[in-house]
Amino acid sequence: MHERKIQAVNRRGLLLMAAAAGATLTLPRLVLAAAGNTQSPYGGDLTAVRAAIERQRAEAIRRLQNWIALPSIAAENRNMPEGAQLMIELLREAGFQSAKVMPTDGQPGVFATLDAGARRTVGMYFMYDVKQFDPKEWSSPPLEGAIVERAAYGKVMIGRGAINQKGPQATFLAALHALKAASRKSPVNIVLIAEGEEEIASPHFSQVVRQPEVLAALSKCHEVFMPFASQSPQGGVEVALGAKGAVEVELVCSTEKWGRGARDDIHSSYKAELDSAVWRMVKALSTLVSDDGNDPAIDGWFEHVKPLTERQKQLIAEHAAATQEADVKKLMGVQHWVRDLSYRDALERLASQPTVNIEGMYAGYTGPGGKTVLPSRATAKLDLRLVPDQTAADAGAKLRAHLAKRGYADIEVKITGGYNPTQTEESSALIQSSIAVYKSEGMPVSLSPRLAGSWPGYIFTDAPVSLPAGHFGTGHGSRAHAPDEYYVIESSNPAVHGMAAATLSYVKHLYALAAG
Amino acid sequence: MHERKIQAVNRRGLLLMAAAAGATLTLPRLVLAAAGNTQSPYGGDLTAVRAAIERQRAEAIRRLQNWIALPSIAAENRNMPEGAQLMIELLREAGFQSAKVMPTDGQPGVFATLDAGARRTVGMYFMYDVKQFDPKEWSSPPLEGAIVERAAYGKVMIGRGAINQKGPQATFLAALHALKAASRKSPVNIVLIAEGEEEIASPHFSQVVRQPEVLAALSKCHEVFMPFASQSPQGGVEVALGAKGAVEVELVCSTEKWGRGARDDIHSSYKAELDSAVWRMVKALSTLVSDDGNDPAIDGWFEHVKPLTERQKQLIAEHAAATQEADVKKLMGVQHWVRDLSYRDALERLASQPTVNIEGMYAGYTGPGGKTVLPSRATAKLDLRLVPDQTAADAGAKLRAHLAKRGYADIEVKITGGYNPTQTEESSALIQSSIAVYKSEGMPVSLSPRLAGSWPGYIFTDAPVSLPAGHFGTGHGSRAHAPDEYYVIESSNPAVHGMAAATLSYVKHLYALAAG
Repeated sequence: MHERKIQAVNRRGLLLMAAAAGATLTLPRLVLAAAGNTQSPYGGDLTAVRAAIERQRAEAIRRLQNWIALPSIAAENRNMPEGAQLMIELLREAGFQSAKVMPTDGQPGVFATLDAGARRTVGMYFMYDVKQFDPKEWSSPPLEGAIVERAAYGKVMIGRGAINQKGPQATFLAALHALKAASRKSPVNIVLIAEGEEEIASPHFSQVVRQPEVLAALSKCHEVFMPFASQSPQGGVEVALGAKGAVEVELVCSTEKWGRGARDDIHSSYKAELDSAVWRMVKALSTLVSDDGNDPAIDGWFEHVKPLTERQKQLIAEHAAATQEADVKKLMGVQHWVRDLSYRDALERLASQPTVNIEGMYAGYTGPGGKTVLPSRATAKLDLRLVPDQTAADAGAKLRAHLAKRGYADIEVKITGGYNPTQTEESSALIQSSIAVYKSEGMPVSLSPRLAGSWPGYIFTDAPVSLPAGHFGTGHGSRAHAPDEYYVIESSNPAVHGMAAATLSYVKHLYALAAG
Repeated sequence: MHERKIQAVNRRGLLLMAAAAGATLTLPRLVLAAAGNTQSPYGGDLTAVRAAIERQRAEAIRRLQNWIALPSIAAENRNMPEGAQLMIELLREAGFQSAKVMPTDGQPGVFATLDAGARRTVGMYFMYDVKQFDPKEWSSPPLEGAIVERAAYGKVMIGRGAINQKGPQATFLAALHALKAASRKSPVNIVLIAEGEEEIASPHFSQVVRQPEVLAALSKCHEVFMPFASQSPQGGVEVALGAKGAVEVELVCSTEKWGRGARDDIHSSYKAELDSAVWRMVKALSTLVSDDGNDPAIDGWFEHVKPLTERQKQLIAEHAAATQEADVKKLMGVQHWVRDLSYRDALERLASQPTVNIEGMYAGYTGPGGKTVLPSRATAKLDLRLVPDQTAADAGAKLRAHLAKRGYADIEVKITGGYNPTQTEESSALIQSSIAVYKSEGMPVSLSPRLAGSWPGYIFTDAPVSLPAGHFGTGHGSRAHAPDEYYVIESSNPAVHGMAAATLSYVKHLYALAAG
């Protein structure tokens, strides 16, 4: 369900292509300069660290390949204890003194701490699970992590989890290995919480975070971040100050619960005397949105919706102005935004408006041709996107109340996952240090007030943890959730980091946070 | 799409169980008496014919098994020319002097004539195709036609096409073989038209019927009938005076045709700025029916709908009075008719009201769990049931106009099959001779003003053919379209005919029609 990565695939590359247009000529020089520089404002003379990264290159790649070879998939209950155990081993090898399994009502999480005797403590979020995959759809076996040449990028590793999320996480761990090999202590203490249910929307992750020892450890942190290969194919980075929340819901209308129509599918000629579960679903769904399908019409839906601030609007306006709308539309396969809005207004909607989407729907006969049945059951899968200060719990309750008020109380509302929206202050040390490191690498940076996608960051930004939360990392990869998922190992594009350069960036980020 | 057989499976048995209740004690005696009687009002002394049927018993069973062994399935384009050729051979062997393939834009039909030099000519309708099947779901191989013992029925043949429609048709052909073996001429001339696309709703059958030579041959006929194993498991027969029409339609709403939203499925977070094909489908569908989903709301839908006649209402009232509503509801898995109607009112609706049913619907992600996509396409499969004097063509045109008027002209309306309603006069020779033969066999008969299911009889009842059309035949079978489809070969129930007795009934029916 973590969707920053998907957003990145679909759009950020393109947006930043335009944003970075002014810097195109100088960009390669800047990056090369940074690569040759042994003095960094973040960590000082990094010659030894850089050399360690080079020395450990093969080992770091092998570590990632070994991790990819063990896919943990919560939806299939596959390799879950094994995945948690490997996570623990990986953390211990990287220098965490303590790393242990945290049982939940679902799949286990992992809680680990690295005490470097440092002044400052940083929170981190990892996931050890990956999305399902079908090897038949892959050009390279999804568990092999083969390194292949890809024209636009250089040498990339192909494998399930390559970008989402094992690649960036393994790169971060390589940074800790390099520090150790260069006889440096980590500049910060680290409190790390990992889960194995991210791909099923983190249903039990808060059980891990709310353990007293975890809350106590997090109370020493100033922020929580997750590794992320943030660069677009052109090298730019978008720093997001928040994300929408999301609730995934399955609505099921069945004659059995309703007590009307025929209990099982029956011949369609009986429609004349029997009620239909599918028509009931269509009529119930129709009440959830405006006539054009674009505004939620669930009772009270906008009660807690906060308008964008002037600063947020300004960031969107800057972004719109720096972007070629026609290119975005072409890449997305779009001719018109809703209601024929201007690009800027469409982007404001994207950041500010809650949505009710039907992600899938089925009823009755769905094969080729026809089959004259009166179906006894209809299913609609919705995803509801939330903005501050909506909450997943309140959204679910409002949906139920809306349906019940209209006589649809028998329609089952199965909430299968929910994230609250998340927001982080632009002025926080996390955001400012991230921007500073990206800039020191010569990367064009843009700020996004809010991702339209969702991630479990709210578990850190909401009470009781209440910390800034976000992503940091350089490098590039894509095709999360899709076949041929990849992560750039050796970049042929001077504007994009390969794994070694991204490793060094994590080192710098830790030093930047240490000073934060 | 021929649905009389499905209706029979679901309901008729039960309805007639009640209707026949008064006759239960005398019924076995009557049937046995008929079986021992060598004099029939239809054909006189049938001793030699009966003996021929007995002699040819094994041959008739083998003929049916051979036919079942060659499944012609139009939806899979499987064995179509072969099926038409076998149909021709079967007809020639049974005494048709002429039998030939009739090409169409789809699969070929067959046109055959048997000239017995008789005074009267009878039209007949056959189909040589069968429904798809999955051998894994069968307890006996679907192409073997194995004969197995079934407690309630005796020896039944299991096979695809056993009841629908090869069993009854082979039984009718056995009647012609027996007449020949008994040195009798057929008492009527026969004009027979067969198709190979009945299971895909007869899209090209009218091309066969409207060939000048076929129309010329049909112009000599007084009726058209198809063989049908009409008996319920309890032995009763329902004679139907008509059937609803049916249009199968696939509605497809795609962003591509619409020109809004994203051309392909895209991440659902974009819903805020992009239109949804699924919401558009939901909103468009919602306009097609009343709020409770039970009355068509398509503009002008009731323009040509004729109310029931007093006689039709009387037949329904008799039927309702003779039936245990609670038993019907239990068998159907129903607690309430629409709008909590009385049983009689529900039956009147069933016979008299056109319907708009969603037989199937799908869009976006339909697998387990969720997947955050904004689907680019939604599909709804509708079946529209029509009553006199609606027509399939007019219904399709009205649906298109209704959608276009509301701005949904981009939604594709693919009409995949259509039957007009059909109605046959109770006073016609076909109906009266059928009733008379059933009664002579001691079978309780009830009249149904109109089947809620549909069949291609309108091709005969509509202009330019304009003949009475219906079904005739004794015997029993069931599970048409389902695994373990069966046809009773040797009945252990004295009230239900096996194949041999049903063969003799066809002989009698031909004699009854000859006198009609």
